[in-house]
Amino acid sequence: MPLLDNINEPNDIKNIPEDKLYELGREIRRYLIKTVSTNGGHLASNLGIVELTMALHRYLDFPKDKLIWDVGHQSYVHKLLTGRKEGLNRLRKLDGLSGFPKRNESDCDAFGAGHASTSISAALGFAASRDLLGRDEKVVAVIGDGAMTGGMALEALNNAGTLKSNLIIILNDNECSISKNVGGVAKYLDGIRTNRKYLKLKSGVKETLTGSNIGNRLFEKLKVSKDVIKRLFVPGMFFEDMGLTYLGPVNGHNMKELEAALENAGRVEGAVIVHVITRKGLGYKKAEEHPAKFHGVDPFDIKTGESLSVKTGRSYTSIFSDTVLELAAKDDKLVAITAAMPFGTGLYNFKQVYPNRFFDVGIAEEHAVTFAAGMAASGLKPVVAIYSTFLQRAYDQIIHDVCLQELPVVFAVDRAGLVGSDGETHQGIFDTSYLSSIPGLMVLSPKDGRELREMLIYAYSLNKPVAVRYPRGTADEFTDIEFKPIKAYENEVLEKGKNVAVFATGKTVKLALDISKILKESKILPTVVNVRFLDKADARLLKELKDDHWVVAVVEESVRTGSYTERLMAESAGLGLGYHFVPVTLPDSFIEQGSVDELWDRYGFNAEVIAEKIKEEALTKLDDELFRR
Amino acid sequence: MPLLDNINEPNDIKNIPEDKLYELGREIRRYLIKTVSTNGGHLASNLGIVELTMALHRYLDFPKDKLIWDVGHQSYVHKLLTGRKEGLNRLRKLDGLSGFPKRNESDCDAFGAGHASTSISAALGFAASRDLLGRDEKVVAVIGDGAMTGGMALEALNNAGTLKSNLIIILNDNECSISKNVGGVAKYLDGIRTNRKYLKLKSGVKETLTGSNIGNRLFEKLKVSKDVIKRLFVPGMFFEDMGLTYLGPVNGHNMKELEAALENAGRVEGAVIVHVITRKGLGYKKAEEHPAKFHGVDPFDIKTGESLSVKTGRSYTSIFSDTVLELAAKDDKLVAITAAMPFGTGLYNFKQVYPNRFFDVGIAEEHAVTFAAGMAASGLKPVVAIYSTFLQRAYDQIIHDVCLQELPVVFAVDRAGLVGSDGETHQGIFDTSYLSSIPGLMVLSPKDGRELREMLIYAYSLNKPVAVRYPRGTADEFTDIEFKPIKAYENEVLEKGKNVAVFATGKTVKLALDISKILKESKILPTVVNVRFLDKADARLLKELKDDHWVVAVVEESVRTGSYTERLMAESAGLGLGYHFVPVTLPDSFIEQGSVDELWDRYGFNAEVIAEKIKEEALTKLDDELFRR
Repeated sequence: MPLLDNINEPNDIKNIPEDKLYELGREIRRYLIKTVSTNGGHLASNLGIVELTMALHRYLDFPKDKLIWDVGHQSYVHKLLTGRKEGLNRLRKLDGLSGFPKRNESDCDAFGAGHASTSISAALGFAASRDLLGRDEKVVAVIGDGAMTGGMALEALNNAGTLKSNLIIILNDNECSISKNVGGVAKYLDGIRTNRKYLKLKSGVKETLTGSNIGNRLFEKLKVSKDVIKRLFVPGMFFEDMGLTYLGPVNGHNMKELEAALENAGRVEGAVIVHVITRKGLGYKKAEEHPAKFHGVDPFDIKTGESLSVKTGRSYTSIFSDTVLELAAKDDKLVAITAAMPFGTGLYNFKQVYPNRFFDVGIAEEHAVTFAAGMAASGLKPVVAIYSTFLQRAYDQIIHDVCLQELPVVFAVDRAGLVGSDGETHQGIFDTSYLSSIPGLMVLSPKDGRELREMLIYAYSLNKPVAVRYPRGTADEFTDIEFKPIKAYENEVLEKGKNVAVFATGKTVKLALDISKILKESKILPTVVNVRFLDKADARLLKELKDDHWVVAVVEESVRTGSYTERLMAESAGLGLGYHFVPVTLPDSFIEQGSVDELWDRYGFNAEVIAEKIKEEALTKLDDELFRR
Repeated sequence: MPLLDNINEPNDIKNIPEDKLYELGREIRRYLIKTVSTNGGHLASNLGIVELTMALHRYLDFPKDKLIWDVGHQSYVHKLLTGRKEGLNRLRKLDGLSGFPKRNESDCDAFGAGHASTSISAALGFAASRDLLGRDEKVVAVIGDGAMTGGMALEALNNAGTLKSNLIIILNDNECSISKNVGGVAKYLDGIRTNRKYLKLKSGVKETLTGSNIGNRLFEKLKVSKDVIKRLFVPGMFFEDMGLTYLGPVNGHNMKELEAALENAGRVEGAVIVHVITRKGLGYKKAEEHPAKFHGVDPFDIKTGESLSVKTGRSYTSIFSDTVLELAAKDDKLVAITAAMPFGTGLYNFKQVYPNRFFDVGIAEEHAVTFAAGMAASGLKPVVAIYSTFLQRAYDQIIHDVCLQELPVVFAVDRAGLVGSDGETHQGIFDTSYLSSIPGLMVLSPKDGRELREMLIYAYSLNKPVAVRYPRGTADEFTDIEFKPIKAYENEVLEKGKNVAVFATGKTVKLALDISKILKESKILPTVVNVRFLDKADARLLKELKDDHWVVAVVEESVRTGSYTERLMAESAGLGLGYHFVPVTLPDSFIEQGSVDELWDRYGFNAEVIAEKIKEEALTKLDDELFRR
């Protein structure tokens, strides 16, 4: 790749001759396809943004100027162009390059991302800061049309319209339908909009028009204000209404158009939206044809486009998908809601079978939850499926609109616990803490696929707010364990032993059973508890076990603060039970990317290690007890 | 009040003759002024919405039809008209009528409220539900222009534009400036917009225009699409762009106009916005002149408009207000951000002194936090002042944009703990739980006014994410206690005793000192600890006290789950210290309205009661110990 070989530092792209840029784009695409087909990651969005990123890098001076990506999964090209080519070989791997912008990875990553709709807010902060501190760097935010439906993007636009800070907002519009919709007016205006004449026209629009016959007659007839006339000229009135300048649409794969648009945008006073039309997946036919499938992918065969990862067993997501269909067949009051994730949440099948009872509200978790509350208050029974990390967005709505009113909404909290290669911004490690402290919300956690199904059926039957949290990936199945029906706040004793009890929940139940096997080798026969209910500590069981148990281990994939582990320990202290605890949780810190196995290893979720700790504690306690007698 | 006397049940207003409605409006205003001047509450917004509420009640059939209020502090007239006149005498009092809509108070309150921008989401849920279940009730949301800046309102509008459900959204626009801005076009269009002809015109706009000379020439000249022509006719294109119909503006104090607009809105297919212009405070001159002052008030003298509540000492808010000014004078990197609460947060003074460094972003807590993160990433040091209950809205942004990136943002969390008469929706009882579980966020809590100042100075000096939580109302001042400088994670031992330790934080420190006095009468000399740092349990102190302390009481105004109390108990269990705990927190439930004193009494925050519990525990433990020896 002769051109890409010359790009090793930020701003190197400025040395590439103009007539070689498209060739560079082709090299970048080949590199992206190779890298993502090997490591997995986000493909279609990065293929779609090659020319836009190149144009931005020719326009901006790094690291002085600030480029802020929304969501950030489309930042691979930016990473390539800022000296991180080699790093991409370990993209999304443990201790490798992040799949998102990261401030501590490069000084060219001005602001981290992962969740949607934050870029305009952050960029406005950068712009306001620059102005106050008397600096002059450029500030650019890049946001997709999907992220633009998130409320905070609109809050930021509203604010950008009143502040007078210079700021370029690139609307990366890859919904092919939109480029068609814009139609005739767009084409007509294209010429004047992306050059300096347009700006002159804008300020002088009233004059220009009143000078003409049409303008005069309009003014007389309708007493039209300048604002209303402006509407005739600008398809982006939605933005202009908010006090922003709108430029576009621009062909996002034409370097000349892009660079001209950026130059013009740089001359605008205040915030300016540059509407860029791109095509997701461009340059890899299979991704162009199936942009959704190639949005985020596992390693795949470049020729066939088929995934190389071996599917073993059913995922929790697909069990949810089937169960919600099963429940819907029995009760036509069931409706399902997703915030722009019909595939990820498994609700796509529901949509096919019950299109009228399916609601995709866009990237809008806050609205999703209150919308569900409204439905529930009016006689329906909504199931809201949102990933653990994104549900953080709707914390207030869960409290204020659902739980305070005790409305029957079931939250299907997918991707609870560690998610792996998406890293810090996507780990579902806070939901046990933030959901459990909400009054009246029951929080359930299944140990395997069958239990997920049973819990969803149970949760739906309660007619009150319930959250069921379950992890990413293949579901465990304990087919040799007899299933005990779910009863309110009764946890499940899987093995009855003595001296030592191991409490676990969700994915860690399998780990607890492995720990048990190891302990048995040392003649310790532990009690193993599957914690089904996370929002209340099991005082009954703690008291019951007290007679012949000394040590309680708790193994839980959550931050410590607010965890079930903490709750159980506090309960024990309150009851004065004096157990010796071996708490195993994630630390109170953000957890980096890596495979879940690697992370388990790093954070001590290892049966041998935990069994060893338990043995130490048990023996200490034993000595102690013997000494007292 | 002869007319109001006849209104005792929902729908009674329909029996009032049309020519008596304005007289009824006057009686309602007198009643409101009397009630609010006696009990305190929200005045200006209710005075402004009298005719609109009457028109809605003449148009709708209660409880069949659904009326959903945004925020809900403007629902007093609605309460009057739905048989709750007598109840208004105990408005906002313990066990009295709520100052907000409440589903369990009346079947005419379709959906509860308290936080802003939820009504359209909820109403859309009601509308979708009605359609699916084959019912035909009307659904109306009433939202103010302020709440419309909240992101979730825009998320809901975006969703309403694609769903085909019939829904009336009343935009209650009481910004006087807007009625002027709308200007010439508005007047011209008024006639056609609020009657059926407008709707016909809308669907036939292209035909109508192309038939005329102007229309023809426009079409030829500019190749204008139907959408662009539409812009000429409709000042509410912002909404039309989102797929909604816009009607208005309507004079919100003219019954005929209002009723005609509602009738017309009811004939529109899909969601329709009715833009109603009202005047805050109308009918009480002092409130009209100072709508902000009379937004939410304490009991006041009707003649003078002066507050009747006696101010004793300085409030925490005013100490924050002064301290942030003090810090700003020393460091020009300090900027202050509020989400539409310059008065409530005390930042109004800051705005006067440093207008360029003050940012009011509107009702937009999510944006406020990420905007601050952007500023912090770019060299400024933002102080973000948001009430505890409203900061719930920005939970994800605090995690994802501030703390994950370790950015120097200070959160001034006002109204932490019980707030009193605003009730369930406004109590700040979750922040200790939701803030403490965020990695890298230090959470501080001052015992008195001086400590608040010191903590703000300390927090600002750290250059990392810190939250300082402080309560509503007058600050305690322990002038006789020598002030110990603040050091990271060192809590303050106020009294050193033995056998019993009482841990308290914030407002409960005073209570702990009172408990100490009572215990001393029984010859128990307790240790009293002021917990300054809430996010980590004080393991050091727990171990240190172990030698000569048996009983630990913790007194904290927070829900139990995720509280400092729980954390401390868990730590003790983990260390195997075997303390006997006397935990005093709020229960894990929503806490109703009432004065803080009344609520303290109800939930056991009483020095005598707690001292008694401690004595029991101490004596039990003493017996136990004696028995063992």
